[in-house]
Amino acid sequence: MTKTVFVLNGPNLNLLGSREPAVYGAQTLADVQSLCEQTSVQNGLNLRFHQSNHEGQLIDWIHEAGRLHGKGELAGLVFNAGAYTHTSVALMDAVKGTGVPMLELHISNVHAREAFRHHSYLSAVARAVVCGLGVPGYALAINAVAQW
Amino acid sequence: MTKTVFVLNGPNLNLLGSREPAVYGAQTLADVQSLCEQTSVQNGLNLRFHQSNHEGQLIDWIHEAGRLHGKGELAGLVFNAGAYTHTSVALMDAVKGTGVPMLELHISNVHAREAFRHHSYLSAVARAVVCGLGVPGYALAINAVAQW
Amino acid sequence: MTKTVFVLNGPNLNLLGSREPAVYGAQTLADVQSLCEQTSVQNGLNLRFHQSNHEGQLIDWIHEAGRLHGKGELAGLVFNAGAYTHTSVALMDAVKGTGVPMLELHISNVHAREAFRHHSYLSAVARAVVCGLGVPGYALAINAVAQW
Amino acid sequence: MTKTVFVLNGPNLNLLGSREPAVYGAQTLADVQSLCEQTSVQNGLNLRFHQSNHEGQLIDWIHEAGRLHGKGELAGLVFNAGAYTHTSVALMDAVKGTGVPMLELHISNVHAREAFRHHSYLSAVARAVVCGLGVPGYALAINAVAQW
Amino acid sequence: MTKTVFVLNGPNLNLLGSREPAVYGAQTLADVQSLCEQTSVQNGLNLRFHQSNHEGQLIDWIHEAGRLHGKGELAGLVFNAGAYTHTSVALMDAVKGTGVPMLELHISNVHAREAFRHHSYLSAVARAVVCGLGVPGYALAINAVAQW
Amino acid sequence: MTKTVFVLNGPNLNLLGSREPAVYGAQTLADVQSLCEQTSVQNGLNLRFHQSNHEGQLIDWIHEAGRLHGKGELAGLVFNAGAYTHTSVALMDAVKGTGVPMLELHISNVHAREAFRHHSYLSAVARAVVCGLGVPGYALAINAVAQW
Amino acid sequence: MTKTVFVLNGPNLNLLGSREPAVYGAQTLADVQSLCEQTSVQNGLNLRFHQSNHEGQLIDWIHEAGRLHGKGELAGLVFNAGAYTHTSVALMDAVKGTGVPMLELHISNVHAREAFRHHSYLSAVARAVVCGLGVPGYALAINAVAQW
Amino acid sequence: MTKTVFVLNGPNLNLLGSREPAVYGAQTLADVQSLCEQTSVQNGLNLRFHQSNHEGQLIDWIHEAGRLHGKGELAGLVFNAGAYTHTSVALMDAVKGTGVPMLELHISNVHAREAFRHHSYLSAVARAVVCGLGVPGYALAINAVAQW
Amino acid sequence: MTKTVFVLNGPNLNLLGSREPAVYGAQTLADVQSLCEQTSVQNGLNLRFHQSNHEGQLIDWIHEAGRLHGKGELAGLVFNAGAYTHTSVALMDAVKGTGVPMLELHISNVHAREAFRHHSYLSAVARAVVCGLGVPGYALAINAVAQW
Amino acid sequence: MTKTVFVLNGPNLNLLGSREPAVYGAQTLADVQSLCEQTSVQNGLNLRFHQSNHEGQLIDWIHEAGRLHGKGELAGLVFNAGAYTHTSVALMDAVKGTGVPMLELHISNVHAREAFRHHSYLSAVARAVVCGLGVPGYALAINAVAQW
Amino acid sequence: MTKTVFVLNGPNLNLLGSREPAVYGAQTLADVQSLCEQTSVQNGLNLRFHQSNHEGQLIDWIHEAGRLHGKGELAGLVFNAGAYTHTSVALMDAVKGTGVPMLELHISNVHAREAFRHHSYLSAVARAVVCGLGVPGYALAINAVAQW
Amino acid sequence: MTKTVFVLNGPNLNLLGSREPAVYGAQTLADVQSLCEQTSVQNGLNLRFHQSNHEGQLIDWIHEAGRLHGKGELAGLVFNAGAYTHTSVALMDAVKGTGVPMLELHISNVHAREAFRHHSYLSAVARAVVCGLGVPGYALAINAVAQW
Repeated sequence: MTKTVFVLNGPNLNLLGSREPAVYGAQTLADVQSLCEQTSVQNGLNLRFHQSNHEGQLIDWIHEAGRLHGKGELAGLVFNAGAYTHTSVALMDAVKGTGVPMLELHISNVHAREAFRHHSYLSAVARAVVCGLGVPGYALAINAVAQW
Repeated sequence: MTKTVFVLNGPNLNLLGSREPAVYGAQTLADVQSLCEQTSVQNGLNLRFHQSNHEGQLIDWIHEAGRLHGKGELAGLVFNAGAYTHTSVALMDAVKGTGVPMLELHISNVHAREAFRHHSYLSAVARAVVCGLGVPGYALAINAVAQW
Repeated sequence: MTKTVFVLNGPNLNLLGSREPAVYGAQTLADVQSLCEQTSVQNGLNLRFHQSNHEGQLIDWIHEAGRLHGKGELAGLVFNAGAYTHTSVALMDAVKGTGVPMLELHISNVHAREAFRHHSYLSAVARAVVCGLGVPGYALAINAVAQW
Repeated sequence: MTKTVFVLNGPNLNLLGSREPAVYGAQTLADVQSLCEQTSVQNGLNLRFHQSNHEGQLIDWIHEAGRLHGKGELAGLVFNAGAYTHTSVALMDAVKGTGVPMLELHISNVHAREAFRHHSYLSAVARAVVCGLGVPGYALAINAVAQW
Repeated sequence: MTKTVFVLNGPNLNLLGSREPAVYGAQTLADVQSLCEQTSVQNGLNLRFHQSNHEGQLIDWIHEAGRLHGKGELAGLVFNAGAYTHTSVALMDAVKGTGVPMLELHISNVHAREAFRHHSYLSAVARAVVCGLGVPGYALAINAVAQW
Repeated sequence: MTKTVFVLNGPNLNLLGSREPAVYGAQTLADVQSLCEQTSVQNGLNLRFHQSNHEGQLIDWIHEAGRLHGKGELAGLVFNAGAYTHTSVALMDAVKGTGVPMLELHISNVHAREAFRHHSYLSAVARAVVCGLGVPGYALAINAVAQW
Repeated sequence: MTKTVFVLNGPNLNLLGSREPAVYGAQTLADVQSLCEQTSVQNGLNLRFHQSNHEGQLIDWIHEAGRLHGKGELAGLVFNAGAYTHTSVALMDAVKGTGVPMLELHISNVHAREAFRHHSYLSAVARAVVCGLGVPGYALAINAVAQW
Repeated sequence: MTKTVFVLNGPNLNLLGSREPAVYGAQTLADVQSLCEQTSVQNGLNLRFHQSNHEGQLIDWIHEAGRLHGKGELAGLVFNAGAYTHTSVALMDAVKGTGVPMLELHISNVHAREAFRHHSYLSAVARAVVCGLGVPGYALAINAVAQW
Repeated sequence: MTKTVFVLNGPNLNLLGSREPAVYGAQTLADVQSLCEQTSVQNGLNLRFHQSNHEGQLIDWIHEAGRLHGKGELAGLVFNAGAYTHTSVALMDAVKGTGVPMLELHISNVHAREAFRHHSYLSAVARAVVCGLGVPGYALAINAVAQW
Repeated sequence: MTKTVFVLNGPNLNLLGSREPAVYGAQTLADVQSLCEQTSVQNGLNLRFHQSNHEGQLIDWIHEAGRLHGKGELAGLVFNAGAYTHTSVALMDAVKGTGVPMLELHISNVHAREAFRHHSYLSAVARAVVCGLGVPGYALAINAVAQW
Repeated sequence: MTKTVFVLNGPNLNLLGSREPAVYGAQTLADVQSLCEQTSVQNGLNLRFHQSNHEGQLIDWIHEAGRLHGKGELAGLVFNAGAYTHTSVALMDAVKGTGVPMLELHISNVHAREAFRHHSYLSAVARAVVCGLGVPGYALAINAVAQW
Repeated sequence: MTKTVFVLNGPNLNLLGSREPAVYGAQTLADVQSLCEQTSVQNGLNLRFHQSNHEGQLIDWIHEAGRLHGKGELAGLVFNAGAYTHTSVALMDAVKGTGVPMLELHISNVHAREAFRHHSYLSAVARAVVCGLGVPGYALAINAVAQW
C-alpha cells in the first residue's frame, strides 16, 4: 500500500513569489507543489497538496487526512498554516481530534519577526517544527515525515 | 404558531464519537441530532440543527435565527461554538447584533482544561452557560430554552 | 439504599429575593429549598440543603458529604459558592480532597459580570458548571446529578 | 426615631494598641469604641460596634445592618475591614446586596504600604473612603455618616 | 484609464440598520453602497463593493484588489473589517502581502467601546484610520483615497 | 449666528515642516492654519486655531470652547493633542467635563508607530478619530464637524 | 503665630458646578473657597486657596508651602490634584522634596470609577486620603489638618 | 518555666490520611499530633496542637500564641495554613501583628504543584519555611523552633 | 564660532540642596550653575542654563536649542528632566523632533530607586545616559558633550 | 555499602561569614563543611562537599552525583544554588535529567526578600525545600536526606 | 578549500541516552557525533563537534567559529544550546557579534513542553529553527547548512 | 599606598572592534586597556583589567576586588558586564556581598536597544551608571571612581 502525505497551506500562501520576496523568496506555490511532488515520488508517497484562505476548508482537509490516518494510510501532514498558526484554536483541535502526525512548517523564521508571530497554537500538537529554511524546507519536511 | 429552536455546532464537532472519546464520549453528532429532535418534539418546538467548520457559515445561520427572532418565531439558540468560543469576536457580534437569546453549551468542562479555553467571547452575550454535562447537556439546554 | 444529594449555598445567598432582584430574581432561598426538595423526591434522593456565610462551615459540610461519598451514599454535590467561588482555594481543596462529584451552579451568568467573577477556583474540580438559568437551574442540576 | 450607625471592625483590629504601634498608634479598640459612642451621642445616633476575625460573622452583621436599612433605621455603616478589604468579594457582595450606605475606613494610609494593600474590593461599593487619619478618623467618619 | 476603489465590509455588516441602531445608525448596507457609488462617480472611480461574513472570502477579495494594484489600476481599499479587525492576522497579511494602500474604517468609535476592540491588527498596515463618523465616513474615505 | 470651530494643536506641532518630514510632511503649522481658515469659511464657520506646548494652556482653551458650547455657539473641537494624547488624563477630563463634541486628529497613523502611541486617553471621550491622512486630514475634520 | 493651611486644586476643578454634576455636585469652586475660609477661621488658620490647570504652577505653590513649612508656619496641605493625581510624578516629588504634610482629597470616590483612576502617585507621600465625601470633605480635611 | 510550642493546622488537614494519599501520605492528623507531642516532650516544651477549617478561628489561636509570646512563654509557632497560605492577608497580619516567631510548614512540596500554590502571604512574615518533608517535617520543625 | 551647550533642569531641581540631601547632596542649583559655567569656559563653550517646573517651558527651550542645532551652533543638550523623565512623551518628541544631540543626566542612581523611576522616555532618544555621579556629573557631562 | 550525600553550594557562598552577616550569619563555609561532615558521620554517610561560582561546574558535579545515583550509592543531594536558583534552567535540567533526589536549601528566608528571589527553577524538581533556618539548616537537611 | 561545520551542544546534552529517554531517545552523544561526522563527509565538510555545560566555553567556541567565518571557511553553526536557549543573552550576542550563520536545533519539540521553554533568545539571531525531529534532526541540519 | 581600580569586562567584549562596529565602534579591547592604563596612571591608581566570557570567572574577580576593598586598597570597580547585566543575579550578589563600590558601564546606550536590555540586575547595587559614551566612557569612569 502506498501511503499519502498531506501538504496543507494556509492563508496568503497563494501569493508566494509576489508577496514580500525578501522574506519569502521568489518561488511560487506552483514551484512548491512541484518540489513536493518530486520529493513524494522519491519517498514512494502519494501527495495531496492544497492551499486555502478559508480556515474552515483547512479543517475539512485535516479531517480528510484524519480518515486516511484512521485507515493507516497517512504518512503524515506537513502544515504551513500561515497566519492561522497564531490565532486558530480550531485548527489545533482538528489536528488533536484526528490524531494526525503533523510537522509544522514556516518558510521564514517566524521567531525573528513580530512578537505576535512567536506563539503558535499548532506547536503544542505538532510532532516537529521547521522554520526559516525557505521553500527547500518542504522537501526536508516530506523526507522527515516519510521516516515516521 | 410553533417556535423553532436552533442548535448550532462549531468546528470539529463533526468528529464527535471519534475525537478524544475520553473527553467527549462515544456518541456521534448524529446521536446528538436525534436527541435534540426528540427533545424538541417533547417541547413542541421545531428544530434547526447544523454543524460547520466555517466561522462565516455559523454567522450566516445566526443571522437566519435572528430573522426568526425578529418575527417572534425563535425559542432560542443553543450554541456549541467549539474552538471559536475562545477566538471569535465576530460570532459574539452576530449574537449581540441579532439579539437572539442564546445558551452557550460545551460538552466537556472547558474550565478544567487548558487556560486558553477558560475565556469565552460568547459568554458575555449568553443568557446562560452549561458545560461538562456531556451529550445529555443538549437535551437539558433545549428544555431550558423551551421555558424562556 | 437512598442516596443523598447535597445542595450547598455560600455567602449572601440568604439574601435571595431581596438582593438585586434584577440580577437574582424575586424568589427566596426558602423557595429554592422547596424546589430542591421537590426535585430530590422526584429523583428518589434525600436532600441536604444548607447555606452559610462562613467559609469554614462550608468546608465542614463538604467533608460531611465526603464521608457519605466514601460510603457510596452520595449522589453528588450541587454547589453555589457565591463570592467564595472566586477567592477560595480552601473550598477547592475540600472538593478535591474528598473526591465528591460536584456541579458548580450560579444563578446569574457570572461570565457577563465583572472580570473578577470570571475566574472560579471551583471549576477546575467541578464535573460540570451551570450558570445563568436562575432558580430553575437548581432543579436542572439535581436532575443532572441524579443521573451520575 | 433614632437612627443607628454600625461600626464594624475586621480581623486583627482587636490587637489595636499592641499591634505595630508605629503604624496603628497606642489606642486600643476599647478606646475606639468609647470615641465612637461619644461621637454617636453627639450626632443623636445609636451605635452598634463590633469586631470579629471571622469573615462570615462580618457578613452576618452587614445583613443585620441591611435589615435596619430596609426599615429606614440605618444612618450608615463605617467599615474597617482590615485585611479582608483586599481579599473578600463576599463582603463586597454583602454591602452591595443589602444596599447599605458604607464608608470604608483605614487607620493607616494603606496606599503607602505594600502593593497588595492598594486594591480594595470594598471601595467599588463604598460611598466614601477615609484612610490615614488614625483613630480620630472614626469620629470623623461618624460625623460624615450622620449627614447622609 | 479609470481606477477602481474597493470597499470591503466584514462580518455582521449585512445587519446594518437592524443591528444596535444606537451604535450603528439606521442606514442599511444598501444605503452605504449607494453612497459609495455616488461618491465614486464624483471622483471618477469604478467601485467594487462587497460584504462577507467569511474571513477567507475577504482575503480572496483583497488578493483581487492586489492584482489590480499590480497593474496600477487600484485607487485604494476602504476596509471595514468588523470584528475581524481585532482577531485576524491573516487579513493583515493579505493587505501587507499584496501591498494595497488601505484605509481602515469603522462606523462607530471603537476606541470608546470594549477594551478588546481597541487593538486592531489592520492598523499596523493601514495608511490611515477613520472611525466614529458613521455612514458618512464611507464617502469621506473614498474622497481621501481618490487623492492618493 | 455663525458657529465656531476650535482647532487645537498640542506639543511640538509648532515644529511641523521641520520635524521628521518623512513622518509629518513638509507643510508648516502656518500652512495648516491657512487650510483650516479656508475650510472654515467654506463651511460658514468661525475658526479658533491655537498651538501650545503647555498642557495647562490647552485645558484653558478647551474650557473656553466649553463656554461657547454652553451657549450653543460651538460647531466642535478638532484636537491634535500630540504626545499629550497618550499621557494626559487632565485633557480627557477637560473634554468630558465641558462636554464639547470633539474629533481626535493625528497627522500620522499613530497605530503603526511605537506601542505607547497606540493608547489614547482622548479616544474614550472623542466622537470620532481620524489619523494618517496628513495635513489634508484637518480639512476633512472640519468638514465632518460642520455637519454635526 | 497663626499657621497657614494650603488648599490646592488641580486641573478642571474650576469647572466645578458645571462639570458632570451627577458626579461632582452643583457647588462651584467659589463655594468651596467660602467653605474653606469659614473652616480655616474656625480653626484659627490662615488660608491659601488656589486652582490651576498647569502642573508647573501647582509645583510652584507646593514649593511655596514648603518654604512656610521650613519656617514652621504651615499647618498642612489639602491637595485635590484632579487628573494629575494619576499621572504626575513631579507633584509627588514636590510633596516629598518639600516634606509638607499633605492630605489627598477627592470629591468623588475615585476608586469606584475607571481603573486608571485607582492609582495615585500622591498617596504614597500623603499622610491621609479622603475621597467621596463631596464638597463637605474640604471642611473635614481642614479640621483634620488643624489637629496635626 | 516550660515554654509552649503552637502547632496550627488549616483547612482540610483534618482529612489527612484520606485526602490524596499519593500527595500527603497515609498518616492521619492524630498521627501528626502524636509525633508532635513526642517531639515536644523531647525538647522540654508544652504543645498546643489545633486544626480548623475556619480562618477566623486560626486568627484567634495566633492571637492566643501572641499573648504567650508577650509573656515570654512561647517557643514558637509551627503553621501549616493549608490553602489559606495562598489567599489570607488576615493570617499574615495576625502573625505580623502579634510578632510570634513562625515556621511555615507544608507537607508536600507546594512549589512543584499548581502555580497559584507558589505564592504564600505567610512567607513574608515567616522566619523559616519547610516543605516537602512529609509528616516527619513536623518533628523537624519543632526541633528547629526549640532552638530559637 | 563659539558653540553653545544647553543645560536644562526639570521639576523640583530648584529645591536642590534642601530636598532630600541624603539622596541629592547639599549643593544648590546655583552651585550647579557655577560648576557648569566654569566647565563650559574650560571647553570654550557658551552656556545656556535653565530650570523650570513647567513641562511646556522645557519643550520651548528644547525647540530653542533645536534652532541653534539647525544652524550648527549647538554643542549638545545636557538634560536632567527630573520626574518628567518618566512620564513625558512630549519631551521625548521635542528632542526627537529637533534632532538635538542629548545627554540624559540624573544626580542620583534612579535605577536603585522606585520601580517607576526605572523607565525613561528620554533614554530612547538620548545619545548617552549618566546617573548617580551627583553634582560633579554635570561637569563630566559637559566635558563629554564638548567632544561630540 | 556506605552511601554518599552531596552538598553543593553555588555562587558567592564562599563569602559566607563576611557577606551581609545580618542576613547570612557569621559562620564561614568551612564551618558549614565541618557541620556537614559531623552530621554525615552521625548518619553513616560519606560526604561530598563543594562550592563553585561556575554554573557549569555545578552541573558537572550534579552529573557525578547522578552516576552514583545510577549505582544506588547516593543518599541524596543537598543543594544551595545561591543566585542560580532563580535564573538557571540548566541546573534544573541537570537534576531532572539525572534523577537525583534533591533537597533545595537556602540559609535565609528567600521568600521575605526581593521579589525576583521568590521564584526558583529548582523547586519544581526538588523533593523538599528548606529555607530560613541558617547554617543549622544544613544539618537538618542531611538528617532528612539520610531517611530517604 | 573545505569548509567547516560547527555543531555545538549545551548543558546536559552529555547525558543523552540516559536522560529522560521518553523525551530524548536512547541514542548517546557519541551516536550523535558519529551521525554528524558521517553527514559532514557526505557534504564534503569538516566537522567541529563539541559539548559543554559551561556557558563561557560555548561562547568561546562561537568566537572560534566566528574567526573561521571571517576567513570564509565556515559553512555554518548547528547549535543545540539546551537550557541556555531560554536564559542566555550572552550566547545570543556571541552569535550576533560574530555574524555566524546559525541553525537552532532541539531534539524534542520544546514548544510542546513547559511554558518557559517556549522563548528562545537564540531564535532572533538564527537563520532557521528545527525541533522535534530527534537525533536525525542533526543530519538534516547539516544537510541544510551545507546548502547555505 | 596606591589604590587599585578594577576594570572588568564581560562576555563578547573581546570581540570589540570586530563586533557590530556601528554600535560599538572600531576600537579593540586592547585599545580600551591602553586607555584605562593611561587614565589610571593620571589618577595615581593601579589598574587590574580583565575580560572573560565566564560568569563564574567574573564572580571570582569581584571577590578578589572585595578582598582589596576589605583592606582599604580598592578605589572602585568599573564593570561592563555585557549581556550578563540583564540575566545575572549572581554577579549582583557578588557586588553586594563584597560591598565594592561599583560603576556600571556600557559602551552603547542600552536603553535605546531591545527591551530586554533595559533591565539591569547590576544597577540596583551600582553607585553610578554610565552608558552611550563609547570607549571614552572608560576614561571618564576611572576619573569618576578616582574621586570616590
